[in-house]
Order: sequence, then structure tokens, then C-alpha cells
Amino acid sequence: MKNNQQDVLAALSVLIASRKGQDTQSSYVASLFSKGTDKICGKMAEECMETGLAAKIDNKDEIIYEMADLWFHSMVLLAHHDIDHNQVLQELARRFGVSGHLEKANRDH
Amino acid sequence: MKNNQQDVLAALSVLIASRKGQDTQSSYVASLFSKGTDKICGKMAEECMETGLAAKIDNKDEIIYEMADLWFHSMVLLAHHDIDHNQVLQELARRFGVSGHLEKANRDH
Amino acid sequence: MKNNQQDVLAALSVLIASRKGQDTQSSYVASLFSKGTDKICGKMAEECMETGLAAKIDNKDEIIYEMADLWFHSMVLLAHHDIDHNQVLQELARRFGVSGHLEKANRDH
Amino acid sequence: MKNNQQDVLAALSVLIASRKGQDTQSSYVASLFSKGTDKICGKMAEECMETGLAAKIDNKDEIIYEMADLWFHSMVLLAHHDIDHNQVLQELARRFGVSGHLEKANRDH
Repeated sequence: MKNNQQDVLAALSVLIASRKGQDTQSSYVASLFSKGTDKICGKMAEECMETGLAAKIDNKDEIIYEMADLWFHSMVLLAHHDIDHNQVLQELARRFGVSGHLEKANRDH
Repeated sequence: MKNNQQDVLAALSVLIASRKGQDTQSSYVASLFSKGTDKICGKMAEECMETGLAAKIDNKDEIIYEMADLWFHSMVLLAHHDIDHNQVLQELARRFGVSGHLEKANRDH
Repeated sequence: MKNNQQDVLAALSVLIASRKGQDTQSSYVASLFSKGTDKICGKMAEECMETGLAAKIDNKDEIIYEMADLWFHSMVLLAHHDIDHNQVLQELARRFGVSGHLEKANRDH
Repeated sequence: MKNNQQDVLAALSVLIASRKGQDTQSSYVASLFSKGTDKICGKMAEECMETGLAAKIDNKDEIIYEMADLWFHSMVLLAHHDIDHNQVLQELARRFGVSGHLEKANRDH
């Protein structure tokens, strides 16, 4: 199960990429791609706010739900700019001195 | 390599959790925990904006850098509210009909 | 002309207040009131992002347009929480040592 | 009193403009100008989030305080891009059919 979870972003990335150029009527992702950066970023900001509002009252189910929205639209933005989400994970790994398995803890963080 | 990449969020989650209750002077994560939800969400909103500004001019390096900031602070918010980041991944998997391996494409997205 | 301009927020405040309890189909403001704080804040975050994106490329017409959106939704949020926008202006006046006429410049700002 | 309140944005605008090119150590506004659009927008996003978090728990004093922060940084962004805040007020007046005195209510809003 756990291994599967770790592949969710990869699978989501494939799904999102498959929506490029598809019919904007039947695919929400395709409609986001066609609307472009401004609209995708606008949705990210909205979901970021809604995540914060859920956190303010510690509504855990809603935090999870809204954070999923935020991460999803983040993945769409990356795809729209032809960026592999693994590059973001690599940047996090580099910055925090973590890799697939936790090797060391960076004391500065 | 790829398998390792996929564990970055798990490793980052362990690192962040290890910062709980630590000295706020030497650990940025510990200082975020002590400042609480408002400040963590404020940082998320700031990083979300900066990701958007980088995307507006299609500066890919900066998109990656700022998105890493956004995801990092997202992980801190989840930890602050005692939420496992896998719950967010599970929600994405459920919603988009994806799992470790892409099983089906949900036509609605 | 200038005096009239200075009354725009007051006039807008009256207009917004008049929409409370009105038909949500025919009035956008009424529909925002009925959706509540989360949706109004989500729109504010979206407009804030769009203002930033316009500023990033120094598109002055779009900055004006999106800032108007942001201030409008700000006024709706205030009204939804029964706050007079003059209280925000008073807070600004207090903080910056300004009043109707610039009396002094607060050196700290 | 009321007339004075209506001039607060004008007075704040003059104060902000006077900070252009000033010492960034002694003036927060000057330091914002020198950091530029990204940082000003980052602060706007942060204050927008904090306004939302205050609204979520209906803390009126904090809504007023954070909204003042948001409007202040909005005014700094306008000044940084050489935009008169009256242009935003004019856009609102145009859009909502209001002027210095409420002439008509636009049924669509």
C-alpha cells in the first residue's frame, strides 16, 4: 500500500499530461490548460486560502481536501510549464539533505 | 533513482516531525511550529504568489524553487495539524482514480 | 471631480449593503453573501494573485482592473462581517499618522 | 470627520510617494520599493491570507487590522508601478455605476 501511495504524484502527473489538447468541455484539466497560467494560478491562490481557512479551525478533513486541491492545481501548473514534478522533489531533497531514504537531517531547517 | 525521488515527501515528513519542540533559534521549522497556523499559512500564501509570479514569466528554475517552498510549507502545515501527508495523497488517488500505478483515467478531470 | 472620487468607497459600501438578503440569482454581491466567508476570501485570494501577475509584467491597465476586483471583494468581506470600511481607513490613518489632510509623516513607514 | 476619512487614501498616497528613493534602513516603504514587485506582492498575499484567517473566526478587530495591512501594501504596489489609486477608485465607480454620491445601483452586482 505504502509504495503505491508514493507513486500517486507520478500517476497524477501522467493523467494530467494526458489531458493536454483534449476537449475542454469534458476535461477540467484540459480547460485549465486552455485558460492558461493566470487562471491556474488564480485557482492555486484560492485553494491555498481555503486550506488556510480549514487550518484556522483545525478541520482536519477539510485541510486534507483543500490541500489535495492545492497540490493538484500545483501539478497542473507544473505540467502547463513543461516541468516534471520530480524536479520540485529533487529541489526539496537537495535543500533538506533528504533523499529516498532519510540520510541526514539538515540542522538549519 | 526514481524510486528514491518518490520517497522525498516521506523523508521530508520525518525531518519536519523531528523538529517539533526543538530550539526555535537553530531550526526554522521549529520556529514555524511555535509561531503557529497563521504564520505558516501566511508563508504558504507568499510562496504561492511567488510561484505564480515565476510562472507568469515562465522562469522554470524559479517556478521549481518557489514550488518547492510552497510544498515545504504545506508539509509543515500538515505536520502542525498532525496530518500525515499520505492522507492528502490518498485523497488525490481517490479523487482521480489513480494509485501507485495508473489504473484508469477519470474522465471528469 | 476629486471630491466625488473620494466618495467612491462610501458609495460602494452603500451599494453592497443594499444587496444583503437580495435575490442571489440577480445579484452577484447577494450570491457572495449567501456563499459566505470562505468563498469571499477565496475570491480575494484569486484577485490578489491576478493583481500580482499583472504587476509582474507591469500591465498597468490590468493592475488597475484586478486591484479594483480585490478592493471590491474586500469591501464585500467587510460588509459580510458588519464592519464599516471607515474603520479600516481609520486604522490606516492612526498607523501612518495621516488624516484627511496629511499632517505629519511617520518616520517609521 | 467623515470628509477627513475620505481623504485617508489620498494622504497615504502622498506619504508613500514621499518614501521613493529614501533610505531603506529608516523607511519600511522605501525598503519595499527597493525589493520590488515580487516582495510587495508576496506581502499582499500574506496579508490577504491573514485577513481571511481573521474573518474565518469573525475577529473583527483583527479583520480591520489585517485589511489595513492589505490595503496599505496595495497602495505601495500601485505607487511602485506609478499608478494613481484614484484610477482604481474610478474603475470601481465605472463598474458599479457609483460616483461621489450614489446615483444608481447597477442591478448586475
